[in-house]
Amino acid sequence: MTASSIVFSSQGQRAKSPTIARLMTMALEKQGLLSLAAGFTDNRSLPLEEVEAAVKALAEGGDNREILQYGMNQGRPDLRKLLAERFLGMEPDAGLGLDLARNCLVTNGSQQALYLAVQVLCDAGDIVLVDRPSYFVFLEMLQGLGVRALSLPTLADGSVDVEGLERLLDQLEAAGERRRVKALYFVSYFSNPSSRSMSEAEKELIAHALRRRAMLVPVIEDAAYRDLYFEKPFPARSVLSLAAWEGFPRLYLATMTKSFATGLKIGYGFCTHEAWLARMLNIKGHQDFGSSNFGQAICQQVMANGGFERQLTKIRAIYLRKMQVLNRSLEQGGLRELGWSWSVPTGGLYLWLQAPAGLDTRLDSQFCQRCLEAGVIYVPGDLCHGDHAPHDRVRLSFGVLGEDALQEAGSRFVGVVRGMVSAPAN
Amino acid sequence: MTASSIVFSSQGQRAKSPTIARLMTMALEKQGLLSLAAGFTDNRSLPLEEVEAAVKALAEGGDNREILQYGMNQGRPDLRKLLAERFLGMEPDAGLGLDLARNCLVTNGSQQALYLAVQVLCDAGDIVLVDRPSYFVFLEMLQGLGVRALSLPTLADGSVDVEGLERLLDQLEAAGERRRVKALYFVSYFSNPSSRSMSEAEKELIAHALRRRAMLVPVIEDAAYRDLYFEKPFPARSVLSLAAWEGFPRLYLATMTKSFATGLKIGYGFCTHEAWLARMLNIKGHQDFGSSNFGQAICQQVMANGGFERQLTKIRAIYLRKMQVLNRSLEQGGLRELGWSWSVPTGGLYLWLQAPAGLDTRLDSQFCQRCLEAGVIYVPGDLCHGDHAPHDRVRLSFGVLGEDALQEAGSRFVGVVRGMVSAPAN
Repeated sequence: MTASSIVFSSQGQRAKSPTIARLMTMALEKQGLLSLAAGFTDNRSLPLEEVEAAVKALAEGGDNREILQYGMNQGRPDLRKLLAERFLGMEPDAGLGLDLARNCLVTNGSQQALYLAVQVLCDAGDIVLVDRPSYFVFLEMLQGLGVRALSLPTLADGSVDVEGLERLLDQLEAAGERRRVKALYFVSYFSNPSSRSMSEAEKELIAHALRRRAMLVPVIEDAAYRDLYFEKPFPARSVLSLAAWEGFPRLYLATMTKSFATGLKIGYGFCTHEAWLARMLNIKGHQDFGSSNFGQAICQQVMANGGFERQLTKIRAIYLRKMQVLNRSLEQGGLRELGWSWSVPTGGLYLWLQAPAGLDTRLDSQFCQRCLEAGVIYVPGDLCHGDHAPHDRVRLSFGVLGEDALQEAGSRFVGVVRGMVSAPAN
Repeated sequence: MTASSIVFSSQGQRAKSPTIARLMTMALEKQGLLSLAAGFTDNRSLPLEEVEAAVKALAEGGDNREILQYGMNQGRPDLRKLLAERFLGMEPDAGLGLDLARNCLVTNGSQQALYLAVQVLCDAGDIVLVDRPSYFVFLEMLQGLGVRALSLPTLADGSVDVEGLERLLDQLEAAGERRRVKALYFVSYFSNPSSRSMSEAEKELIAHALRRRAMLVPVIEDAAYRDLYFEKPFPARSVLSLAAWEGFPRLYLATMTKSFATGLKIGYGFCTHEAWLARMLNIKGHQDFGSSNFGQAICQQVMANGGFERQLTKIRAIYLRKMQVLNRSLEQGGLRELGWSWSVPTGGLYLWLQAPAGLDTRLDSQFCQRCLEAGVIYVPGDLCHGDHAPHDRVRLSFGVLGEDALQEAGSRFVGVVRGMVSAPAN
């Protein structure tokens, strides 16, 4: 008797094995490989003492047994209140007339919020406008749901090309596809993968272009890295505060995962549109009816006792240093002289490299293969594009490796580049 | 400027606000209400000390900082190994030739596993065969995904009516709907809502009926309450062991949520079908790329140090006592003499009542309204049916209330019944 074969649903058929899983498998198969691919956070500074103390305080601080009970589907009310207060500390005018705590949802990392947002907005065949480059797990998720990503056109400096955007919107109109555009998505602070941030003016230009065409589509601002500045916050408010975005349904997403402890998997968002929020919560009710109440209670505790901000202060300095180590390793190795270019970031976890034109850095490229052989791995930049993907970009993460390993990984990377120059790919 | 209205996706439109949310709102609006509705677990016995000790041991027991880092999408390998070993302790022959740890997935409660399973199997309009009665959150989730639930016919004793099932399958064939049947789902141990368990013979009869029609559809066995027996385990193996189910793709689901701490939200499953598992993991990669690694590490710790089994031993006795208190309150109040009937369960969290024929217990019924006024609430049994729902069933949970409150809630419930007899609903 052989096992029955299954006819999978259209969604079951569409969802492909995530590229990150393939990268991890490649990494596991190769001993001693240094990964500049994983967007993991710094292991050695993970706040284990802070979390242990929070659990101890919760366990011994009165009648807190409910933290091990089911919580609310939407998230712990007191955590949502703290998250709202913290946000209003950054943007006092956000959501004027809006109760941010009531409009907050807590999710299994901000990834789940992205998934829910797209689920309730998009049918297969619909379109989401995305930044260029964009967060590759989001792009893969769109593919999995059968949703098309269309990139916002950009200028040479990486900022949005407003004229190009207007042309794109006109083309959609002409093609009868305007109504298929269901959302706009961008990572606006120290972006994954580019580490670029969007100024208020740039955000406003996008809003104006859409408004001129009466396309007040839902906008998802992904601020996952906003807290991870090195020295000072990026001076731009979000779509929740900017007048240009009034009237657009808005979802602002952030997380305590990247900024505090990835292992807790607690993300959150604020949504200005009641029905959109309600429908996301309806589906969350089916997916899990609430994120880990215990994880949320720990987040709440460290928000309330200052542990969260202490951790941020600590890791900002660590990430600055680690960025500098990797950056120096590449510069001192002579990578710029070999025709590569990149901006030195002021926050985030990534260096976003431009290879000399013509060099193919994709997963199946000879360059990628040689990197693997040399014991270093990266995220190929083509994965970070919704369409018209260039083949010559590379994302390097300085998040997880220690300083010595970053130095070594950088050297290996430059070594492969040098080797390709002297013995080009066939 | 008013906010833009959103055209939601078909799925966004279908997913309704969960009934449990409505029940909770009703409860919140009424002070002093005693809820026999919530499937919550016993608050006072939640293992806070056990969890605190686990976190302390993890934090102080060597280089464990990775528990706060991202983990694997599929779940912590060592946790999966422990879960597989524990299962093989119960069913030594399960998955002969199958590496259970490799075929295990860890999810945000077993609810997420249910969602993933249905997502990859079913398109809107497809059919899932379900037990009768069945888990109402699963049924609502099917509705939200546009999937039709068809109940397995039952005999008067609640067991599956095999002749009825064969007729049902023939009708599906005749109606050209056979190919729309994408899965079979049942709760097999101390079921939610009925507290009934399925014998091996009963499970085998279902398998035979399907096999006779060459319908080797994927089967989901939900064993969420299997560990929650009062005095001894229910003596039936699962579909993973029974020869009658060979050749069927099988997903066995369980959880550490109900049995240990609901606040940790860690469920798990074993899947015999490689492609089914792979596709569930693909979608999980889009939804969250891994459940809380920290929550999993705690589960792993209490599995390894015996804390999990200690907690089970403790709560089994507690739930037995609580069941007895509620049961006695109903019996001594004279509910049986008033025409109500129910079985006294040997595990689980529920009493499943049959009202005298004709009494409407639905959410909008006068009976339900009077209960609310009397300060007691239950889950109307019609919600627990995939189709042809009876209007005269009631699910009472003895999970969360303390003994005094259970006694009082039972009295209030009987009081309402008595009141309806002397002053019938109009």
